[in-house]
Amino acid sequence: MKVKHVRGISDLGKKGIQEILSLSDHFLEVSSRRIPKVPALRGKTIAWLFYEDSTRTRLSFETAAKRLSADTMNFSVSSSSVKKGESLRDTVETVSAMGVDAIVVRHGSSGVPWLLSRWTDASIINAGDGSHEHPTQSLLDCYTIQKQFGEIEGKKIVIAGDIKHSRVARSNVAAFKAMGAEIVLVAPRTLLPVDTTSWPAETSQDFDASLRDADVIYMLRMQLERQKETFVPSLREYTNDFGLTLERVKKLQKHSVIMHPGPMNRGVEIASEVPELENALVTNQVSNGVIVRMAVLYFLLGTSADLPEGNGSNE
Amino acid sequence: MKVKHVRGISDLGKKGIQEILSLSDHFLEVSSRRIPKVPALRGKTIAWLFYEDSTRTRLSFETAAKRLSADTMNFSVSSSSVKKGESLRDTVETVSAMGVDAIVVRHGSSGVPWLLSRWTDASIINAGDGSHEHPTQSLLDCYTIQKQFGEIEGKKIVIAGDIKHSRVARSNVAAFKAMGAEIVLVAPRTLLPVDTTSWPAETSQDFDASLRDADVIYMLRMQLERQKETFVPSLREYTNDFGLTLERVKKLQKHSVIMHPGPMNRGVEIASEVPELENALVTNQVSNGVIVRMAVLYFLLGTSADLPEGNGSNE
Amino acid sequence: MKVKHVRGISDLGKKGIQEILSLSDHFLEVSSRRIPKVPALRGKTIAWLFYEDSTRTRLSFETAAKRLSADTMNFSVSSSSVKKGESLRDTVETVSAMGVDAIVVRHGSSGVPWLLSRWTDASIINAGDGSHEHPTQSLLDCYTIQKQFGEIEGKKIVIAGDIKHSRVARSNVAAFKAMGAEIVLVAPRTLLPVDTTSWPAETSQDFDASLRDADVIYMLRMQLERQKETFVPSLREYTNDFGLTLERVKKLQKHSVIMHPGPMNRGVEIASEVPELENALVTNQVSNGVIVRMAVLYFLLGTSADLPEGNGSNE
Repeated sequence: MKVKHVRGISDLGKKGIQEILSLSDHFLEVSSRRIPKVPALRGKTIAWLFYEDSTRTRLSFETAAKRLSADTMNFSVSSSSVKKGESLRDTVETVSAMGVDAIVVRHGSSGVPWLLSRWTDASIINAGDGSHEHPTQSLLDCYTIQKQFGEIEGKKIVIAGDIKHSRVARSNVAAFKAMGAEIVLVAPRTLLPVDTTSWPAETSQDFDASLRDADVIYMLRMQLERQKETFVPSLREYTNDFGLTLERVKKLQKHSVIMHPGPMNRGVEIASEVPELENALVTNQVSNGVIVRMAVLYFLLGTSADLPEGNGSNE
Repeated sequence: MKVKHVRGISDLGKKGIQEILSLSDHFLEVSSRRIPKVPALRGKTIAWLFYEDSTRTRLSFETAAKRLSADTMNFSVSSSSVKKGESLRDTVETVSAMGVDAIVVRHGSSGVPWLLSRWTDASIINAGDGSHEHPTQSLLDCYTIQKQFGEIEGKKIVIAGDIKHSRVARSNVAAFKAMGAEIVLVAPRTLLPVDTTSWPAETSQDFDASLRDADVIYMLRMQLERQKETFVPSLREYTNDFGLTLERVKKLQKHSVIMHPGPMNRGVEIASEVPELENALVTNQVSNGVIVRMAVLYFLLGTSADLPEGNGSNE
Repeated sequence: MKVKHVRGISDLGKKGIQEILSLSDHFLEVSSRRIPKVPALRGKTIAWLFYEDSTRTRLSFETAAKRLSADTMNFSVSSSSVKKGESLRDTVETVSAMGVDAIVVRHGSSGVPWLLSRWTDASIINAGDGSHEHPTQSLLDCYTIQKQFGEIEGKKIVIAGDIKHSRVARSNVAAFKAMGAEIVLVAPRTLLPVDTTSWPAETSQDFDASLRDADVIYMLRMQLERQKETFVPSLREYTNDFGLTLERVKKLQKHSVIMHPGPMNRGVEIASEVPELENALVTNQVSNGVIVRMAVLYFLLGTSADLPEGNGSNE
């Protein structure tokens, strides 16, 4: 299967997701070596084009790129020609002409990764476009769930919180569905998209009821900085109805797990103590992020001849 | 020929320019390899000292440095001791004491690269000083013209636009002249330097007339952010008289080419569609920028023993 | 001796300091090679977590890391999740989960490095916490003095200036004392800590008297940006009483040396010409900074099997 871009989950489908999860197992092994590096992408150049602040995602990609021995190019928008009025297209064509193999882009507007892919021969990886998609987050979430349960198929996943503004939710619904999970979206009506009829998921306003038979509770971040209007009467009331408190955790099945894409607003959507519980996988998600992004970069740019062997002696 | 600095075109002269263009051919070949890297500058450290925002030039230099396996050190002025009142000299002596082989400097004041070279043993490369010089831009422009026509000698080059504020124009006039070209500067009087008698170039206010027998039309960026006064009655009128419109392109000779150092103000000095035409070399200039900067870095810091061979098996 | 962190000088004690100084001799030799790099920390990842602006210290650490072939991860606070309200602990746990071996932290609050070391398995290196400690500065100062005099023991060191706000002074007093030096703190009462009875040093307000038999004059930076109140009647008066003028330098013993951690306020605590004198070691301090930080990183993360040999042929 040859895929050129990871702009959204639809670029991958079930087969693409599976291939990346399977490559991830390989890179998990690489990451456990004394020298967790392979020369798989030596000579490849990957550019970061971040029009929105990001550190977690960028660092995760950078660490992945370094472990694959790729070179990186950081197009920092705050000190760039963009300030001099350069268009998005000219920026991309410039970066492209310098010789890059992939561009990892984050932008405040939905659809930018698709635009970019028309203007460059490089592979485009979406690191978040508006409230639209964030596919590598979904891939790491899929990998985290699969490592926990052996498979995603048939699992009941509750996604709770600010779904309206969440690109993580949109990508996760698509990815979890492709992998055969059952999805429930839980949020106050004001934080649900206006029309969810086309979403392959149930919706509910009853967080407590949804918890009982869930395998995965996936909490979303209240994106306080993205909300221009007020969507909830008060944060206190929101936390009361939709926050994952210790009380609510007690209602979960023994085997169920808690996830959050970070950064967390502790005390808002998740109680301070919850991420420290044994069934909270927040730290695993971060670790898996590096591994899965190695897999994504290799999936797009590698050739099977470069596939590192399962021993620690290379390079 | 042993040259220590590239502060301005006068550090090179015709012989130096020729040597860099000839090295560029070598690095063009390197850049076309599957792994476009050579260990030519392994163990060398190059510092970026940018007192003005820049992404294009910095990325181009960084990519060049990485392909030569040099290490880099990014002295970011915005988060630096400069804020704590450290003098330029102390900054340079500090960077120098950490062990750098070359300093690439961009500064708002003309002459800074020459000052720096008195305070450090490192090679100084000027990445733009005020409206004075930008020699590596000229070198990549020379290389682009030479690749297109086989030689620069005898070519008629029209440089049009905001010449008064342009360091690109100053370096290009010097470099094109050294290489034997005939130069015409086209601009409204207000955007010409006060006195151009010492410039080895004709001047003209008639853009249309100058286009007829030009081989190269070199458009300059209107540096709207640098102009503190108003130099043109209106942008509309400027575009009308001095913008490279599709109409004007039709008047060009068949073999003539269009260049622009970027970032472009599309719709101001150049019509939106023009950079996409077949005889526009804007993207080639960007690609050649990396190659020529590899040549410049190698020219200053390399030893012939390091000169990479013409095969892909090194390192 | 196995040490996990360098949060403060107390993590090292005399034995630790000595071991680092002895490793520094080794890395001094490495730094003099044509290719001043060794693969000693290949595959290790070091994260910079700088909550305060810094370039000198960060560049020094970065250069050290590169010469040891370690990978680095730059957690830039200005563009980070910290802005989205993420807690210090979540930030550290995130960086940690991505797989880092050491975190180099600078923070405005005293004690942060100790907090961090409770939240991560990575080694913590303090690059400055409030006005508390800056241990690697002290180590490079110790190394500079030892290179100059052969030993630190018995030397009389005058530390003069803004001691109240100086983390450099606090670490240096601890380190110099551990190494057997005699220390005199010279400052106006308003720039001394409220209670210095527990400090293993004399205090004095008579700069001129203290200079006579000093071996080392260590000038501190007036941290004008840190002072929220006015601590001195006027800078002019301060310079008059406590500035290292050329007049005062003439009173020094022939063998005594002048040091300053930089960045200097020339004309305030030190006269403009003084740092250029032959007995001023300011530039040596900067050069030694890279070498000593190589030693610190290797001391914490290396294994003796990685210890580079004393020849230039490796990697």
